[in-house]
Amino acid sequence: MATEANRQIYFVQRPKGMPDQHTFELRKSAVPKPGPGEVLVRTVYLSVDPYMRGRMNDTKSYIEPFPLNEVLQGGVVGQVEVSKDDRFQEGDLVVGMLGWQDYSVAKGEELSRVDPQLAPPSTALGVLGMPGLTAYFGLMDIGQPKKRETVVVSGAAGAVGSVVGQIAKLHGARVVGIAGSEEKIRFLKEELGFDAVVNYMAENLKDKLKQACPDGVDVYFDNVGGEVSDAVIRLLNKHARIPLCGQISLYNLEKPDDGPRVQPSLLINSALMKGFIVSDYQPRFKEGLQRLAEWVAQGQIVYQENIIDGLENAPQAFLGLFKGENLGKQLVKVSDIQ
Amino acid sequence: MATEANRQIYFVQRPKGMPDQHTFELRKSAVPKPGPGEVLVRTVYLSVDPYMRGRMNDTKSYIEPFPLNEVLQGGVVGQVEVSKDDRFQEGDLVVGMLGWQDYSVAKGEELSRVDPQLAPPSTALGVLGMPGLTAYFGLMDIGQPKKRETVVVSGAAGAVGSVVGQIAKLHGARVVGIAGSEEKIRFLKEELGFDAVVNYMAENLKDKLKQACPDGVDVYFDNVGGEVSDAVIRLLNKHARIPLCGQISLYNLEKPDDGPRVQPSLLINSALMKGFIVSDYQPRFKEGLQRLAEWVAQGQIVYQENIIDGLENAPQAFLGLFKGENLGKQLVKVSDIQ
Repeated sequence: MATEANRQIYFVQRPKGMPDQHTFELRKSAVPKPGPGEVLVRTVYLSVDPYMRGRMNDTKSYIEPFPLNEVLQGGVVGQVEVSKDDRFQEGDLVVGMLGWQDYSVAKGEELSRVDPQLAPPSTALGVLGMPGLTAYFGLMDIGQPKKRETVVVSGAAGAVGSVVGQIAKLHGARVVGIAGSEEKIRFLKEELGFDAVVNYMAENLKDKLKQACPDGVDVYFDNVGGEVSDAVIRLLNKHARIPLCGQISLYNLEKPDDGPRVQPSLLINSALMKGFIVSDYQPRFKEGLQRLAEWVAQGQIVYQENIIDGLENAPQAFLGLFKGENLGKQLVKVSDIQ
Repeated sequence: MATEANRQIYFVQRPKGMPDQHTFELRKSAVPKPGPGEVLVRTVYLSVDPYMRGRMNDTKSYIEPFPLNEVLQGGVVGQVEVSKDDRFQEGDLVVGMLGWQDYSVAKGEELSRVDPQLAPPSTALGVLGMPGLTAYFGLMDIGQPKKRETVVVSGAAGAVGSVVGQIAKLHGARVVGIAGSEEKIRFLKEELGFDAVVNYMAENLKDKLKQACPDGVDVYFDNVGGEVSDAVIRLLNKHARIPLCGQISLYNLEKPDDGPRVQPSLLINSALMKGFIVSDYQPRFKEGLQRLAEWVAQGQIVYQENIIDGLENAPQAFLGLFKGENLGKQLVKVSDIQ
């Protein structure tokens, strides 16, 4: 085993506003032992995701709040060290919701196998995992982009947004991204073929968006909320669709803020706004993963990963999400595949 | 003919905020003469509807703004005086979008026949007209109420809301109305069988709504918007649906106001909010009218009309909509059926 002790990142204080160093605590314990039907998994990659901020509050959200003084939970790609479940054997690569720690014990049914022949294993946390499925179902089921329509996506350079834009392009839409740095804008235009990208940090966001969307907005895939969304919603076309995927701009507010009411815009445009969480589509995950894997294999969807080394740096990687530091899927590398 | 002159109500000033006496002007002209393919219609009932307020602004809405210095347009049930279209003859009852005036000339294809055997002709402007169809399609297509779900409807005593609540009851839902007077509340509970009704003028609207919806809100049919809607949206259940039909509380604001952002509530509940206008469902009007007519004939939907006499009182009837004066469909009686 790579380490004798099991380093673990505990969730020790509910943040008010932006999380910080006091939110987390690194502790050590003994490497756990799997019982019958259980598997010991060594963490290879940890996923850090914006939705986790919601679980840090002690209020109703998609899913239960993280309990205090326990190890943080998140998506993990790992390698089986010891298996007491017939379905897995030592060396297998698996993905599941596990802990922010070097080693986790899980029941076999909580794990899915990762096929390293299909794509690099890290993609099971990104384009071929929850973020990819989130992009696929939100866009296809709620957004329903059509040829020559204008699809706007906020958080465009993130793990979800970058896949949304590419799927929309594959369906013949004109794709306009919203992102926060020149590096991201260059990437989205040059590497992913977005038709236009607007920097939300720029002055005159409203005017720039309007220039980028001369025919209005038919689909707005919303990862960020707040004033960016206010500006997009002013440009809605008749029968527009808004999949609500995230509201990262609001996650760290101590109180929900006010904004222009959206109902009048939705009303006069017969427009639809719908929230979703990827687990709403659980029965169709297989379909989604097949489509995504085909597109990735054919090079029609490219993906970007932003990998930080070391379990101890997971909190910093998480905080970086809210500073817009990641281009593509943010991962933490904890150990090597052996 | 009932009068020699044609009294007409002109739209002469775009209101800022609440319309008033300066918005309208009563003028007189000669009774017009129909040309080939045209029909002279004597107005029997005029419909006054909240959506007309939107057309008084010079801004984008569902439909074009009313032009200044022309006769106001609205729903009319009338009687054919002279027909130069083979499809109609003198004495026929018709419905169409005509002028606020004693006599209108219309092309035959702009008129639909009203069958006085089916129901009182005035219902062609209410439960068997646009308001009834608005209730039917908004609730059935967007709201999709299921047995034992809680359906909340604002503007519950109005022409649309009262039908929404009754259709929801027919589908086995628990129906909670929101209305603004004790008379309306009594009517909704005792005459229409609503399970609970909350007075939005009451203090502690939030608490009263919560008491009235102990199992949360599955469908919110929104006619009013603003703070009433803010209170309902706090109570949404997972997978709730919100048909946006109107925002009467906002129509007379000079500037759109701010309110708590709805996106977080929609997101954590995978909830849907969708604007619509009844004309979105034009291809299905026949289906809707058949269902509504059956329910009315069987006494499963009852309707209420609030009729003011005299064309000259149409502006006052219209203004009354924003003061919550009408219980049921607001109509103006202009002449008798002969």
